[in-house]
Amino acid sequence: MIELQTQRLGEHEILHAFPAGKGDQPLPVVVFYHGFTSSKLVYSYFAVALAQAGFRVVMPDAPDHGARFTGNEQARLGQFWQILRGSLVEFAALRDALYQAGLVADNRLAVAGASMGGMTALGIMTRHPEVKSVACLMGSGYFTSLAQTLFPPQDDAEAVIASLAEWEVSYALPNLANRPLFLWHGEADDVVPAGETFRLQQALIREGLDKNLTCLWEAGVRHRITPAALDATVAFFRQHL
Amino acid sequence: MIELQTQRLGEHEILHAFPAGKGDQPLPVVVFYHGFTSSKLVYSYFAVALAQAGFRVVMPDAPDHGARFTGNEQARLGQFWQILRGSLVEFAALRDALYQAGLVADNRLAVAGASMGGMTALGIMTRHPEVKSVACLMGSGYFTSLAQTLFPPQDDAEAVIASLAEWEVSYALPNLANRPLFLWHGEADDVVPAGETFRLQQALIREGLDKNLTCLWEAGVRHRITPAALDATVAFFRQHL
Repeated sequence: MIELQTQRLGEHEILHAFPAGKGDQPLPVVVFYHGFTSSKLVYSYFAVALAQAGFRVVMPDAPDHGARFTGNEQARLGQFWQILRGSLVEFAALRDALYQAGLVADNRLAVAGASMGGMTALGIMTRHPEVKSVACLMGSGYFTSLAQTLFPPQDDAEAVIASLAEWEVSYALPNLANRPLFLWHGEADDVVPAGETFRLQQALIREGLDKNLTCLWEAGVRHRITPAALDATVAFFRQHL
Repeated sequence: MIELQTQRLGEHEILHAFPAGKGDQPLPVVVFYHGFTSSKLVYSYFAVALAQAGFRVVMPDAPDHGARFTGNEQARLGQFWQILRGSLVEFAALRDALYQAGLVADNRLAVAGASMGGMTALGIMTRHPEVKSVACLMGSGYFTSLAQTLFPPQDDAEAVIASLAEWEVSYALPNLANRPLFLWHGEADDVVPAGETFRLQQALIREGLDKNLTCLWEAGVRHRITPAALDATVAFFRQHL
């Protein structure tokens, strides 16, 4: 049995799941990031599955999503990359709040996410060596090139894209190679092309940096999470957190 | 806070969510059905959201899905309509198991689902007057016509389709009109056409049977559940269960 609650942690509301009775004790923690125009609640099945495997799961809302949504859908559609950057910048405070609350066992802290949330997880991995392992489902770490075609910034495009370079995987492959990394992508993804994950896999292999990489493809699957993807994510953290 | 567990109920494993501490006491119950090639676990965010609203939520796996999956994906793809029919037939035993366990308060029993699960919910509504209210997200109740284009049966097509007629909405509009019914569909749905829901809405209006109908459309949304769809489902059951 697991328990799950919506609560405040640090600056914002989070969704918090854990094995029953273990709300206050240190546990290995997975911070999980949801996708664009979705919410922590819609992705809470990751919290269910990971908490059933014994982990504490903390799911924030991205800026202007879920409990933080201002209600202007049209404006939000033009803010994809600013919102991604917001989540990247906010990670440090969320991590600190987790530690201050005494919720992390033995520095066993991992990050995961799907779609925009997968991009968040990869970006965090480039700059946070304290994160022990990372899972990115149907995401990408090539922010500056993908921003040309996926929800291109409507205002200050150059500045917005430039601000993402410091989180980009292109310049940080060794930081993605020195800890366990799990990548999953549906091969028929019609939102975030599966080629984004293939590009990262090939870049790591080319540099001989794929020792800690687990890569899983699913044929015929578009932009959605399958039971196999969810199971593989849980299996990855059972082994690597 | 809510609690959630995977357990056996009746013949099969279910996912079971409820407000914390209320695992054994009678509550209003929503039976929720997941979509094709998915699982009760991947759709467990509906259990989270509805249990947070005070309901007991019971999610079965469809035949050959989740804990019941045989592992043969290719064979399953040809069995959509047989699987749907399986869930329809199995409802009575699941309902009886819920009552025998003393889990239903004041006969407040509702059914909901998304995609194939939404079809399951509509089919159950046609033949189970004891169900108090129903929510169908991105589904259809026009089984016999939709089976011509959506996962057409590979074997015994005529017999399979004929076996679904007794659950079809076409012949049971009054049974869909005498209790609260919620329909949601993304207008850009690329799997189950939004026209299926429009057809049912128009049929009910034409017969003057739309007094208990709530219909919600979301522009630009394909075959996925949005935060707005989830919120509206919870709001519907808060009002009608």
